[in-house]
Amino acid sequence: MDKNKILEYTQLYKATLLENVIPFWTQNSPDWVNGGYYTCLDRTGKVFDTDKFVWLQGRQAWMFSFLYQEVDRKEEWLAISKLGIDFLEKYGSDSDGNYYFSLTQKGRPLIQPYNVFSDCFVAMAFARYGQIPGNESMGSKAIAIFQKILDRQANPKGIYNKVYPGTRPLKNFALPMILSNLCLEMEPLLDQGMVEEILDTCVQEVMVNFLDQDTMVMFENRTLDNGYSNSFEGRLLNPGHAIEAMWFMMDIAKRRGDQSLANRAVTIMLRQLEHGWDKEFGGIFYFLDHEGHPPQQLEWDQKLWWVHLETLVALVKGYHLTGETRCWEWFEKVHKYAWKNFHDPKQGEWFGYLNRRGEVLLDLKGGKWKGCFHVPRALYQVWRTLESEVDKKNF
Amino acid sequence: MDKNKILEYTQLYKATLLENVIPFWTQNSPDWVNGGYYTCLDRTGKVFDTDKFVWLQGRQAWMFSFLYQEVDRKEEWLAISKLGIDFLEKYGSDSDGNYYFSLTQKGRPLIQPYNVFSDCFVAMAFARYGQIPGNESMGSKAIAIFQKILDRQANPKGIYNKVYPGTRPLKNFALPMILSNLCLEMEPLLDQGMVEEILDTCVQEVMVNFLDQDTMVMFENRTLDNGYSNSFEGRLLNPGHAIEAMWFMMDIAKRRGDQSLANRAVTIMLRQLEHGWDKEFGGIFYFLDHEGHPPQQLEWDQKLWWVHLETLVALVKGYHLTGETRCWEWFEKVHKYAWKNFHDPKQGEWFGYLNRRGEVLLDLKGGKWKGCFHVPRALYQVWRTLESEVDKKNF
Repeated sequence: MDKNKILEYTQLYKATLLENVIPFWTQNSPDWVNGGYYTCLDRTGKVFDTDKFVWLQGRQAWMFSFLYQEVDRKEEWLAISKLGIDFLEKYGSDSDGNYYFSLTQKGRPLIQPYNVFSDCFVAMAFARYGQIPGNESMGSKAIAIFQKILDRQANPKGIYNKVYPGTRPLKNFALPMILSNLCLEMEPLLDQGMVEEILDTCVQEVMVNFLDQDTMVMFENRTLDNGYSNSFEGRLLNPGHAIEAMWFMMDIAKRRGDQSLANRAVTIMLRQLEHGWDKEFGGIFYFLDHEGHPPQQLEWDQKLWWVHLETLVALVKGYHLTGETRCWEWFEKVHKYAWKNFHDPKQGEWFGYLNRRGEVLLDLKGGKWKGCFHVPRALYQVWRTLESEVDKKNF
Repeated sequence: MDKNKILEYTQLYKATLLENVIPFWTQNSPDWVNGGYYTCLDRTGKVFDTDKFVWLQGRQAWMFSFLYQEVDRKEEWLAISKLGIDFLEKYGSDSDGNYYFSLTQKGRPLIQPYNVFSDCFVAMAFARYGQIPGNESMGSKAIAIFQKILDRQANPKGIYNKVYPGTRPLKNFALPMILSNLCLEMEPLLDQGMVEEILDTCVQEVMVNFLDQDTMVMFENRTLDNGYSNSFEGRLLNPGHAIEAMWFMMDIAKRRGDQSLANRAVTIMLRQLEHGWDKEFGGIFYFLDHEGHPPQQLEWDQKLWWVHLETLVALVKGYHLTGETRCWEWFEKVHKYAWKNFHDPKQGEWFGYLNRRGEVLLDLKGGKWKGCFHVPRALYQVWRTLESEVDKKNF
């Protein structure tokens, strides 16, 4: 690996973030009339639906506060973040402080607060915005939401849970995974003892309880005593989820100076990637069944933007933290696939959904699940990690 | 269209039903140990998951009672029907008489009774089984379930409904559509006035309220005053659903001697088929957005077995009732597509899920949603309708 190659990638990720992706969202997404953001944007950036999904409102408000703090104190970015923060504060939650799943253009509730990740991404947004001087009150709100999330851990769906109690209780990977990242995001606002305790729990859940120690396969659902459930849910693998969680683990490892955790995260990440890679058409499968049975998810063989972007982040961080050459080889392979298939050279931003062959399945740039989040966050993470690599190597 | 062609089709559908599809299920599906049926069967018929989905338990119990009554008084068929009926009676419902969505192999509840179609297909099974002499008590049970379904019409999901009340209330096509068929199935058990009233309501809902009268497009969801909702749900089209509903309408038309209803059902059916047909790769799309926007459903472009089988039924019934030649032309076109792509000449039965190109996406023969229902019911319907056509034409 030579210096010029790294510098070339650094420049590509940085320029795409700042000159292509962020402008796409600043131009097309803010709803300056009603507040919040439109996220249902067609290939060209035109709004095709006006519903506002709380996950994506929170994630975009977070993204623009993050850019303001970490990249450049642009007033436009702060104003865009505030647009989402205010909208969420005004319309986002019910009287108990639980966040709805979706709202109309004008903020009226559409779908009830059944999904704890709405709360997670609102907390993430409020916490980041609250760290900007003058916004401290939003920090307190973030803490209150975070506490409610912790209280909901045992039954995140609450009254909307359709699982009959007791027959086959399973726990799901997504919440400990997201908490690993959210807890680091919220660290400046939290008591340090609490942070360490939550991180300990998250690392235990992610690195031990959801992982089969023999095969090194990461599962989406486990029994309450951390075992395998031979059922549709128990057999389900989501390679992108597992790989994304590994870069959250690497961030924890870096913060704690825990080289052993970093090494293990890299090993597990590469294992999921090798297993999840489509040897016939390239790209990473969305879902797999551990025993090779047909999964329930009809979209199992599709190639999703976030899976590939989070994999690029995990690979570059893995390389940076451990020097493992397979990380670099895989980075170049996934990079090539992603830029060839997801990146839209004509209309900017990235496609979200490809079929198994890598052809565009839906040409939207944003929708119910794709917003201003995975693309810019990953571009930022790759850019900055490669920059540190250049510094470290002292080229 | 010549007589030999019709006779050839008649023989093909009949033989496939009786010598291929039904034997596949009688050999692989009954759970003689625990009761009920395994429906998660791989390409060869081997059980790959033991969970029991109440929709499919009810549908299979119905299918075998139906075959026993309508085709041949085989004791094996009656015993298989009874296996599902007894299992559902013993384990299927909660103490309020609402049917769970799924059960374990041994009948313990897994998923709560959130889905009214579980109740619909249990009622259908009990009603059909209850018409066999000696089983009259099951008929009474069917009536009680049916009454509960009618009571749930305004909010079928009950406490599991995640839609916030009042903001954008929509009604869904599936329940009036299923009631159109279920009501005819249950007719021998119901008061005649009640039957006529329910059929009137169903015909009004299906043929008027869910249909845009100008464009003749059938919608999956409408506002409570039968209007268009420009939202993901409101724009959603499901051509297979609309086409299946049209043969339910044709059955009502035939029963009522209402030629005008039959003609209109044929016109609407052909309209949905022409719109839903994939001009590039053939086959009928699963979902479309009315305005051509990206649908939420990632599986939108897939080709599903039931869509094509129900279309074959609608086309052959449409031809039989109206003589419309486009029905026959389309029948031959869809027949060719279906037998080339869905029919499994090697291991029997039909594949359920193809990708857009018509390649097998999941090679299961049964799963969470595919059981012993659409394939045999459609083969039966096509066989018998073609037989009547031969009689009518007096070849």
